[in-house]
Amino acid sequence: MNNRLKKQLEFALEIDKEKNIFRQTHLSGHGRNENDAEHAWHMAIMAYILKEHSNQEIDIAKVMIMCLIHDIVEIDAGDTYAYDEEGKKTQKEREEKAKERIFSLLPDDQKKELAAVFEEFEEAQTPEAKFVRAMDNLQPLMLNNSNNGDDWRAHNVTAEQVYGRQSKTRAGSETLFEITDTIIKENIKKGNIKPLSENN
Amino acid sequence: MNNRLKKQLEFALEIDKEKNIFRQTHLSGHGRNENDAEHAWHMAIMAYILKEHSNQEIDIAKVMIMCLIHDIVEIDAGDTYAYDEEGKKTQKEREEKAKERIFSLLPDDQKKELAAVFEEFEEAQTPEAKFVRAMDNLQPLMLNNSNNGDDWRAHNVTAEQVYGRQSKTRAGSETLFEITDTIIKENIKKGNIKPLSENN
Repeated sequence: MNNRLKKQLEFALEIDKEKNIFRQTHLSGHGRNENDAEHAWHMAIMAYILKEHSNQEIDIAKVMIMCLIHDIVEIDAGDTYAYDEEGKKTQKEREEKAKERIFSLLPDDQKKELAAVFEEFEEAQTPEAKFVRAMDNLQPLMLNNSNNGDDWRAHNVTAEQVYGRQSKTRAGSETLFEITDTIIKENIKKGNIKPLSENN
Repeated sequence: MNNRLKKQLEFALEIDKEKNIFRQTHLSGHGRNENDAEHAWHMAIMAYILKEHSNQEIDIAKVMIMCLIHDIVEIDAGDTYAYDEEGKKTQKEREEKAKERIFSLLPDDQKKELAAVFEEFEEAQTPEAKFVRAMDNLQPLMLNNSNNGDDWRAHNVTAEQVYGRQSKTRAGSETLFEITDTIIKENIKKGNIKPLSENN
């Protein structure tokens, strides 16, 4: 086997470990915790069927591969919960190291290509990255809403926190932000998300 | 919310159930059984990084969405193990019903589009479908090989069965069939796969 194919297959086997990285989100039907690979799969299909709602034109192949690999660094760095302020302080450093190790398994041109896709997602400036961010927010919001907001209640999540995160959805899709906003308001009303504090 | 978006989100939530459909394959590191969503995620990334090995030119966006949705019918139809000859007799009928129910959740144009992608995969005639079939075979072969062939041994799988299935890999990629063939031969030598019977 040539060395290029060998490296590609080593990477393919290594990323299997992402299936063992569990998130705070639970599957619909009050199921178990979701893992990163399932989350990425779900996001990529959602991106494909919702692409018409992107604020800007997007390259759907780029969007899909970005969805699929955006959490690969968590194989080493672990999942940092969206509202874990302590964990977020070291997240960048942990993920940089992981990016270097994991993408270096690939042939050099593919290492550069996929690391660049990951960085583009992190920077959230391009139309594709903004839309992937919208999926990264909408997918767990949808699951959590389907479970009567269990995950929000378990973590005492506030409206400020949810809106802070979901502002990124708006940059990707005004239409999807509208439905997001409706879902958040319903969950505040039900007591699943703590309301906006008065000075906001 | 408009009716089109409502249907798209209903489909998005419904497919969450694919994460509960477990396969015979085990995760690397002698892990638990893999589910369909994880398998599809893994295949789509493998297709992206291995695309240069396709026998024919392929549209990678189409390949990725085909990988991602190819097992969605199993939400209703269940997983049919590759070497379950009894289960295969009713597989087509079960999957046809599931295809109709699940894709009908989408707006009509998207129902037609995704059902056509699924049918294209099933028929395995286009360059994209052949390459997705190669991924559908290579991904579990890679995991099983990494686990010293545990899954083959557990099911008393024979070389005829493995080669029968992996012939589809060859139609998608001669290069990937070569490495597949090497892996199969090594696993026959180790006693993980029962050897070809003498009259073959």
